[in-house]
Amino acid sequence: MLTKNLQFSASDIEKLSQRYRAEFINSLSGFKSANLVGTRDKQNNNNVCIVSSVVHVGAHPPLLGMIMRPHTVQRDTLENIKTTSVYTLNSVTSKFTQQAHQTSARYPHSVSEFEKVGLHMEDSTVINAPYVAESSIKLSLEVQDIVVLPVNQTELVIGQIVEAILPENSIDKTGYVDIEACDNMAISGLVSYHATQRIARYGYAKPNEELINICDEITRENK
Amino acid sequence: MLTKNLQFSASDIEKLSQRYRAEFINSLSGFKSANLVGTRDKQNNNNVCIVSSVVHVGAHPPLLGMIMRPHTVQRDTLENIKTTSVYTLNSVTSKFTQQAHQTSARYPHSVSEFEKVGLHMEDSTVINAPYVAESSIKLSLEVQDIVVLPVNQTELVIGQIVEAILPENSIDKTGYVDIEACDNMAISGLVSYHATQRIARYGYAKPNEELINICDEITRENK
Repeated sequence: MLTKNLQFSASDIEKLSQRYRAEFINSLSGFKSANLVGTRDKQNNNNVCIVSSVVHVGAHPPLLGMIMRPHTVQRDTLENIKTTSVYTLNSVTSKFTQQAHQTSARYPHSVSEFEKVGLHMEDSTVINAPYVAESSIKLSLEVQDIVVLPVNQTELVIGQIVEAILPENSIDKTGYVDIEACDNMAISGLVSYHATQRIARYGYAKPNEELINICDEITRENK
Repeated sequence: MLTKNLQFSASDIEKLSQRYRAEFINSLSGFKSANLVGTRDKQNNNNVCIVSSVVHVGAHPPLLGMIMRPHTVQRDTLENIKTTSVYTLNSVTSKFTQQAHQTSARYPHSVSEFEKVGLHMEDSTVINAPYVAESSIKLSLEVQDIVVLPVNQTELVIGQIVEAILPENSIDKTGYVDIEACDNMAISGLVSYHATQRIARYGYAKPNEELINICDEITRENK
């Protein structure tokens, strides 16, 4: 079936209303990770906030980045990170997408989103920041750098993973963590949560070798 | 069912073998976007390369970032981007995950991955870079900044969207693009491709309002 395409020029995008453009542009990058950031302020008040901008920066040392906007609801989170230099990342599963999404509401600073949305806190054993008990994968990170991006003053927080907690049976002999089996969600746009279904798993690609889809192999073996 | 957890400390991670650690750390951030980057060199040779590190940087102006490692297969792509200051991003669908993944093989510079993997090229009308004809969503970008991250010398390429092409029926009145209906894939780890199934869509969260899952509403209406 041929589908007619829509074409947006730079000036078409410029003319969109603010909310429409935000939703539109946030959809275009593709699927995003769903994580809750756990932080504490100086008075040990707990804060938890959803982010969809976590990105792999490097494996050795193990670094993750996340883009944060200083003037949004993420302000408390960013201030806490700057104060303590630590934070946790906690995967969002299908069991609590509503609670996770509710953390994006603008609660007063003194309010703990954990209590307001009904998620449970667990202490990290290595840093002064709260894990989300309900999450399947929990990471403790120490800030290595915060880079202010000159283009629009958003801040790229780069942290090193100093603890990783995950279900025992989720990791295979190659080091791959089956985040689908962990019930991790993907996000699209600003408000949409998706479960996943693996359709292909390949090896490392080489110029003159055909790729084999391991999922097909497994299906064949089970027949 | 209670699952036993595995716990990795910083020194546990440090001790992992290089390949295992790469696969492991690449899994931990959560689901990633699946895009093909289209570029050209000075001699107009076409290059196409898969990236899973595209991240939303801002909506006004519309900016996307991607983390690139100078010493990997992405080197040609990065060199072309630095030469021409433009590139395209093209969504990967279930129809061509194998071809998309094959672009990560180390082909000689003079070889066009389009021909080698069997994908088709289409000219962007606004920049000198190739689109992937098979993709459902195609974006033209102009480089606004390339930030070298001091922590590990990876480079964050930030581009502004100057053209967006997408199926007419994929965008709703809020600006949301249904990238699931566009058959966009999500990536986990280094080699796994996933289709998605929307399980929740909420509104903007407010402190004293319960979130409604629009997916539930739609299911109810169809009964």
